[in-house]
Amino acid sequence: MALDIWWISGSPYAWWVLLAAEAKGLDYEGHLLSISKGENRTPEYLAMNPRGRVPLIRDGDFILTEAMAIVAYLDTKNGATPLFGTAPHEAARIWEAISQITSDLQRASDAFADPILFGRAKPDNPEPIRESAEKLKTELAFFEHRLASSSYLCGETLSAADIGLLPFLLFNLRAAGRDIAKDLDLDIVPFAGNYPRLAAWIKQIEALPGYDKTYPPHWRN
Amino acid sequence: MALDIWWISGSPYAWWVLLAAEAKGLDYEGHLLSISKGENRTPEYLAMNPRGRVPLIRDGDFILTEAMAIVAYLDTKNGATPLFGTAPHEAARIWEAISQITSDLQRASDAFADPILFGRAKPDNPEPIRESAEKLKTELAFFEHRLASSSYLCGETLSAADIGLLPFLLFNLRAAGRDIAKDLDLDIVPFAGNYPRLAAWIKQIEALPGYDKTYPPHWRN
Repeated sequence: MALDIWWISGSPYAWWVLLAAEAKGLDYEGHLLSISKGENRTPEYLAMNPRGRVPLIRDGDFILTEAMAIVAYLDTKNGATPLFGTAPHEAARIWEAISQITSDLQRASDAFADPILFGRAKPDNPEPIRESAEKLKTELAFFEHRLASSSYLCGETLSAADIGLLPFLLFNLRAAGRDIAKDLDLDIVPFAGNYPRLAAWIKQIEALPGYDKTYPPHWRN
Repeated sequence: MALDIWWISGSPYAWWVLLAAEAKGLDYEGHLLSISKGENRTPEYLAMNPRGRVPLIRDGDFILTEAMAIVAYLDTKNGATPLFGTAPHEAARIWEAISQITSDLQRASDAFADPILFGRAKPDNPEPIRESAEKLKTELAFFEHRLASSSYLCGETLSAADIGLLPFLLFNLRAAGRDIAKDLDLDIVPFAGNYPRLAAWIKQIEALPGYDKTYPPHWRN
């Protein structure tokens, strides 16, 4: 039966789902929605998800929301590229990393990247940017350290933890590259100099088959 | 091998782990830490979790942090009371509910319960309390509605979704019962009148074997 994925460009959560679908080699039809056109508030969409959020999948007649729940579900579709390991200890480490990403890193990301990318940060008030950058760097250092002992976050193969981290990381690098942040010399970019293992890890993931299909279209401009 | 659980009184996350261990009927040794005494910052504890957070488990020599990762891991210890269902669709629904709890409900809870319970809310400024109560009530109505079709959040037996909801719910009811909130007639308490299904669901969980052992000791005073 057909697998349909509804997503929006640049949402880290929607990106998780596309990355998982590509990593698993699943056939799917993607539906790119425009929030500004209200395409997530149509009666048809709200019937599938009353919260009007993306991502959302429909697998046959099974409709599922919430990004990491979708990633876990897609992982059960076939045995290729297990995203949660093959043993309880491995799954535990992967869920542990996902929890660190969705609590600590996400909080740091909300504080640092959101104000910069959504225009709330002001050049004449750099202190909040500096403070939030310090918290972000604590989290980046944590993941940089992890990659000292393995090629991916939880071992030698891609897992749901890597999928969890990548969009948030690129989101923050996008913010760190904006003039308002770059001018403050925050020691985040140039990234390969400050976080060489994370930079190499990004390149590894970018080289995975299907990665290009997941990249936010509006980021290419 | 022995299972050890480090926890603190009143943390919803630590409570998840105790509820899961009891639901699974696991033998464990609990270690109740006092944050005010700095027992989560001792060298011994920081060696296990550099973030100094609870909950944490040690199963033999496997150390694991992050509450829902621990719940998922404990679920694999035996086949009794599966907390993530027995089929991919069931696990997906349970992770979906957990995600709604840790994103939407938690955000509403942070905004409503934290200021009241931690003394930041002020009686001469009721508007933030009223506003955050409205958001909380949207989430409560969502879960109340779910319980129209099943005894537990994801079916007829306890799952990790129920474990995820209970501590946050009781945390918010504790806040709603404080004078500063009660005086505003927020229509949260009396709870059984406003949310009869959730109130009955709480009673069901309270009746589960081992529940009393998980109840925050300092809440009894």
